[in-house]
Amino acid sequence: MVSNPARRTALVDAAIEVLAREGARGLTFRAVDVEARVPAGTASNYFANRDDLLRHVGEHIHVRLQPDPERLAALLRADRDKALVLALMKDILARLSHDRAGYLALLELRLEATRRPGLRADLTGTIARNLEDNVRYHLDIGLPGDRTTVVGLYLAMTGLVVEHLTLPDVLPADTLDDLIAALVDRL
Amino acid sequence: MVSNPARRTALVDAAIEVLAREGARGLTFRAVDVEARVPAGTASNYFANRDDLLRHVGEHIHVRLQPDPERLAALLRADRDKALVLALMKDILARLSHDRAGYLALLELRLEATRRPGLRADLTGTIARNLEDNVRYHLDIGLPGDRTTVVGLYLAMTGLVVEHLTLPDVLPADTLDDLIAALVDRL
Repeated sequence: MVSNPARRTALVDAAIEVLAREGARGLTFRAVDVEARVPAGTASNYFANRDDLLRHVGEHIHVRLQPDPERLAALLRADRDKALVLALMKDILARLSHDRAGYLALLELRLEATRRPGLRADLTGTIARNLEDNVRYHLDIGLPGDRTTVVGLYLAMTGLVVEHLTLPDVLPADTLDDLIAALVDRL
Repeated sequence: MVSNPARRTALVDAAIEVLAREGARGLTFRAVDVEARVPAGTASNYFANRDDLLRHVGEHIHVRLQPDPERLAALLRADRDKALVLALMKDILARLSHDRAGYLALLELRLEATRRPGLRADLTGTIARNLEDNVRYHLDIGLPGDRTTVVGLYLAMTGLVVEHLTLPDVLPADTLDDLIAALVDRL
């Protein structure tokens, strides 16, 4: 195991591209080396095995999908009302649409987790922790709504992003903002 | 192309099992023949190519995931109120949890659709039609709520089913009924 952190991150980013493009079965050390344009054998020097690589991918996707701190700080200058919740939800959609490969790779990991108990445990930990952090944050900064609001919006946004990124013509793109506004209003 | 309808359906059902278990890349005519326990070469006599097989899978999954007519008729003897909407949503969760392979195969198809324009067009047609049918049905039989209610519940239930079938420990199973009740109430 070598440990050049920047190189390791570049390999994980390459693995995310391969997952999104080829699916879980296409994710091999060889494919990661090719995608990252590094000599054959590099990925196998950084990760003990495929499970180890998948674990790093699961953690790093969540880092990639976090909001930009400056953008978040700018949004949070507003009043703690429904309009701010709506702005935060629209920001999620914009962020996940922008990092389409990251979110598609996460869906591939979810499906791969149905076949790999270790990955399932790791990914459950990461996602459950993220959801709890979101609930606490929402309540702590005084946004309107309760725990059910946050969990309900998380589920509805998951459904919306899955639909928009896999079959974008089911819900026309120009109707999404109104739909999110209605979800925020009712939840 | 031969056309024994029962044999064709058995092959499509076998393809759904292979998709759920192995992922889209694992879906070959050979794997379908093995899963269906038919002689090698059978699937290739029923489907022009892999795209043709994927198209049939996309259509048949939606047939498999439809509610049982008798069960639906029994549910619909109740008043057209929120309690009935809740019963219908719980029935969706029960049905998709029961046919776990069918729903996981649909997620695999959604991801495969990001790589195959023909599959994307077919699946978009099927899912958009289904959603419109659900909206019309909900309003026609006089259930409470509007178009946004139906689309919002569709998205939230998609998020909930994706979570429950891929990472079942993120949302504890004994909290799901209360969560669905809150979603129905607010949407």
